[in-house]
Amino acid sequence: MIRQPNVEFWYEFASTYSYLAAMRVEKAAAEAGVVLLWRPFLLGPVFKAQGLETSPFARYPAKGRYMWRDMEREAARLGLPFYRPKTFPQNGLTAARVALLGIEPGWTPAFTKAVYTAEFGECRDIADPAVLTDILTALGLAAEAILAEAQTDANKTRLRRMGDEVQSRGIFGAPTFFTEDGEMFWGNDRLEQALDWAVAQARRSDWPV
Amino acid sequence: MIRQPNVEFWYEFASTYSYLAAMRVEKAAAEAGVVLLWRPFLLGPVFKAQGLETSPFARYPAKGRYMWRDMEREAARLGLPFYRPKTFPQNGLTAARVALLGIEPGWTPAFTKAVYTAEFGECRDIADPAVLTDILTALGLAAEAILAEAQTDANKTRLRRMGDEVQSRGIFGAPTFFTEDGEMFWGNDRLEQALDWAVAQARRSDWPV
Repeated sequence: MIRQPNVEFWYEFASTYSYLAAMRVEKAAAEAGVVLLWRPFLLGPVFKAQGLETSPFARYPAKGRYMWRDMEREAARLGLPFYRPKTFPQNGLTAARVALLGIEPGWTPAFTKAVYTAEFGECRDIADPAVLTDILTALGLAAEAILAEAQTDANKTRLRRMGDEVQSRGIFGAPTFFTEDGEMFWGNDRLEQALDWAVAQARRSDWPV
Repeated sequence: MIRQPNVEFWYEFASTYSYLAAMRVEKAAAEAGVVLLWRPFLLGPVFKAQGLETSPFARYPAKGRYMWRDMEREAARLGLPFYRPKTFPQNGLTAARVALLGIEPGWTPAFTKAVYTAEFGECRDIADPAVLTDILTALGLAAEAILAEAQTDANKTRLRRMGDEVQSRGIFGAPTFFTEDGEMFWGNDRLEQALDWAVAQARRSDWPV
């Protein structure tokens, strides 16, 4: 049996289309035989480096209005709840710091989906530590200890280093997918192409098993 | 038999993703039983109204670099040739003025596809009147007379009025699709959803036959 290819899934907790991707990426990857690597990151510094002080959806109102309508339709098509948060974009800094901690023990996917559901399915504020505590507790995790570890200098540095990687790899939005050969795919609309690319790559004769 | 629903297809000649849409929209619409209304327009004034002096792909280089790679992949997936034009965005003003003239006599779809093929399949400059003359002549049309009519005040005004409609309808990019109930769908990636929406609309009991 050949080694399964992997796809990196880079997402930002404030991002509406990252929500759609996060809720369906596991099933799609499993069906394609692709291993998923979850990569929470912050879009704010990416936008700032481009000269944007906020989300493009806030900077360009016509595009923003369309996005909310498109999200309603796409969420309905995918069978997902969707409510427009009272504030947008939400501050996903603490959630991203927490999500980093779950990558090795394996609870990042469940935590990520729960955060998105709170944000876009239940209109809760994901910057509120009480919301994150609820989510971690419901997952059977030691919420207090995890939130404390999330705010350590070591973990803050880890998220900043991911930010450096984001810049050097040319990421400009979320969600973004990478295959092992460095191909970048942007947007929930490109999930299938990213998985197809990874599968095709693994079928080539030079694939390292 | 119920009246077929229609979908408006708004496109800009300089737009790369409009090219992908233009080359596949007729087959997709015919299979869905949807009547297509072709709407050439100019994105420049739309970008200016948003405070952008050029295409977002030029304003945001990381996004631009990604777009060229994504276009290569998507064109290959759709079986279309694709070459990056020497200049981008190209000036599609004259082509848009010409395309308006073919809506009633019915040659706008063929003209539009020929312009996009020249631009993205053959690396030709669509702002060059000689290129447009070649295209019109190859379609068996009176190129000289059409180019003269395209530059009349009446036709220039017609294109400007379409620009007013573009602004009032909230169009912010291309391609953009509208169903009869005013739903807007942006991007080549939303062609299928626009057609599905139009078909669903025509199946409702209140559809005016």
